[in-house]
Amino acid sequence: MYEGAVQDLIDELGRLPGVGPKSAQRIAFHLLAAEPADVEQLAATLLRVKNEVKFCSICGNVAQAEVCRICSDARRDPAVICVVEEPKDVVAIERTREFRGRYHVLGGAISPIDGVGPDDLRIRELMVRLRDDVITELILATDPNLEGEATAPYLARLVKDMGITVTRLASGLPVGGDLEYADEVTLGRAFSGRRRIE
Amino acid sequence: MYEGAVQDLIDELGRLPGVGPKSAQRIAFHLLAAEPADVEQLAATLLRVKNEVKFCSICGNVAQAEVCRICSDARRDPAVICVVEEPKDVVAIERTREFRGRYHVLGGAISPIDGVGPDDLRIRELMVRLRDDVITELILATDPNLEGEATAPYLARLVKDMGITVTRLASGLPVGGDLEYADEVTLGRAFSGRRRIE
Repeated sequence: MYEGAVQDLIDELGRLPGVGPKSAQRIAFHLLAAEPADVEQLAATLLRVKNEVKFCSICGNVAQAEVCRICSDARRDPAVICVVEEPKDVVAIERTREFRGRYHVLGGAISPIDGVGPDDLRIRELMVRLRDDVITELILATDPNLEGEATAPYLARLVKDMGITVTRLASGLPVGGDLEYADEVTLGRAFSGRRRIE
Repeated sequence: MYEGAVQDLIDELGRLPGVGPKSAQRIAFHLLAAEPADVEQLAATLLRVKNEVKFCSICGNVAQAEVCRICSDARRDPAVICVVEEPKDVVAIERTREFRGRYHVLGGAISPIDGVGPDDLRIRELMVRLRDDVITELILATDPNLEGEATAPYLARLVKDMGITVTRLASGLPVGGDLEYADEVTLGRAFSGRRRIE
């Protein structure tokens, strides 16, 4: 146990996700040795994040304004919506530069174990968008895990009679990976999703 | 890239030791979802650490006051000083409850590669303590790595003619470890330091 503020900082850092007691201690002593201006800036940014960051009223992504950069960008195709679980998924997809439509951030996936039902996600807001705008394709890009795989067919069923094409991201072998190291579910998906080479 | 403050926070968190871009993102979104009061408290603790935390004028350990808790504790044996590299070493030794003397924190170890020489450490302050107080034993508890192993004999040489018993913490097999997994240096130390069983 350290004296006073150092121990308080170690305790508070240790509560952050992925930061164990050893890293909390390491970070605390790093900050203790750092320039006061740097630490003040970190503290100020923490407060700014809570005060400034909003969630886009259309897609639910993090935003600086009422509407996020992507939703307010007229060059993005308004007829295609890609549904993701979290804001970080938007960033991951944007990095591919493969997608020119807009997003809808659910805020998670259906998970009975964690007590997350459809009403805890931004599904109602998605249905409003599908009803009000002219949407031709809905891409379901929830995570390829248990919760994401359960959420995708749930959404597909809701949208069934609306005349919208519903697609799901392909599952298969990761590019650059070795076939022998792929788990059997991924390898099975790669087989069932195999495509003819023209 | 996220908009505004979120990206700033991810960037700043990513500069902390042991926090990569993925964990920085995870921590940022955790804080975004956290109670405002918790985030405000973390920001306040960061500022408090810089303002409140002092280093003990005697031993160099972190302290809330001019003199740390251990140095101002009359029940601690003033005749034995344990020399360590960092404040976290004090905490590690205190946890063992084996040591009832006082400490001296060097603030690192001699490391020519990192440009740390004897003058960059609190060695002068140690010599003053050894001269002014009645010290019977000096325990050298620098790390059992290259730098720590070089710093210990350097200090031992400085103290040589002062009539003080100089000791070094034992090296050997870690308790609970398997002999077969010990590296050869540790195993060699365990042999050369073997003790007769009475």
